[in-house]
Amino acid sequence: MPNYKVSRSVIKRLPRYYRFLGELNSKNISRISSGSLAEKMGLTASQIRQDLNCFGGFGQQGYGYNVLELYNEIGEILGLNRHYTAIIIGAGNLGRAITTHMAFEKRGFQLIGIFDKKESICGQMIKGMPVRHISGLDDFCRSYHPKVAVLCVPESEASIVSKQLVKLGIKGFWNFSHYDLQSEFPDLPIENVHLSDSLMRFSYKIKEQDEKKD
Amino acid sequence: MPNYKVSRSVIKRLPRYYRFLGELNSKNISRISSGSLAEKMGLTASQIRQDLNCFGGFGQQGYGYNVLELYNEIGEILGLNRHYTAIIIGAGNLGRAITTHMAFEKRGFQLIGIFDKKESICGQMIKGMPVRHISGLDDFCRSYHPKVAVLCVPESEASIVSKQLVKLGIKGFWNFSHYDLQSEFPDLPIENVHLSDSLMRFSYKIKEQDEKKD
Repeated sequence: MPNYKVSRSVIKRLPRYYRFLGELNSKNISRISSGSLAEKMGLTASQIRQDLNCFGGFGQQGYGYNVLELYNEIGEILGLNRHYTAIIIGAGNLGRAITTHMAFEKRGFQLIGIFDKKESICGQMIKGMPVRHISGLDDFCRSYHPKVAVLCVPESEASIVSKQLVKLGIKGFWNFSHYDLQSEFPDLPIENVHLSDSLMRFSYKIKEQDEKKD
Repeated sequence: MPNYKVSRSVIKRLPRYYRFLGELNSKNISRISSGSLAEKMGLTASQIRQDLNCFGGFGQQGYGYNVLELYNEIGEILGLNRHYTAIIIGAGNLGRAITTHMAFEKRGFQLIGIFDKKESICGQMIKGMPVRHISGLDDFCRSYHPKVAVLCVPESEASIVSKQLVKLGIKGFWNFSHYDLQSEFPDLPIENVHLSDSLMRFSYKIKEQDEKKD
């Protein structure tokens, strides 16, 4: 597939396209017009056409898009067929939920290990994997070369463990800690999930709504 | 406090300001220049000044910002002192992790209930609250009038339960399901957390990085 240069905002929308198309496909809908797709996604039809044209010509004027073809193509653009190996650091409530709740395999990743510093939970099984003690991280990485790490540790621990992981060859972080990894590793792919920022934005939205009514 | 009209992108940054200022305050740093704050946040000093000017005049030329004052003011803008009552719907892995992991009280909310449809987990205690059976939702809402709900249920269940909740007076959703609540309730404050979209964006970033090197 050609290597398209695509804007950040299109990339941001691609996972949503992918989800919507997956739903359509599971309902055995094989074609969709840019108009219907736009309505489903809360965008305009011309925005949809523009977004998808970034990747070359999908769809034909008057015939709409082939759902399965577009779904597969977007999956490929997102790299979901690459199965990057991943480890989870932190098997507390959050790490455990992320491990069990997320369909890593469908989203481009293969989970190969989960680590924690608490002796008492080591050996427990989560999604068929034993929680390993963090002291075995070096050996594990040298043997299995995980590509990325999911950081589910508190901010105070993220600094040390992330440096260790980068030394061990980790090439990216899905970061649930509040630690500012990007300024530490400016060249590394990092995706932050700041749940408490989201919660604060939610608070703001409710307050704003309340004030509208006053 | 006056009611400022603030742009979406400033609002999006406010939680980060709040977190950074909180850290500074906990380190007993009482003043910071827009330059240092900018560096910490990966923004420019003029962007910082512009952002904070939206809310009236913080800081004095040459003196920087009073950390605690700015922290408190941003907290107030975000509505963090309002303690909106919240219930969690879904006590599976994700609901449980969100309940235990998030500092709701510090982020504007007061958790007052958690619900699930699984009989077997009802009565279990999470963060000092018993998991209640979803059949008791109507009575609970009529008695305690929760303001918002956190949806930690699968997409397939989100449609029904969200309609029920809105009828019961719920005024906003922190939505972890993939169900498109906003198109169902266009006027309601809704904050979505789409973890699998984030994971797919992460996949894309790694693929992009790999291709740079090729």
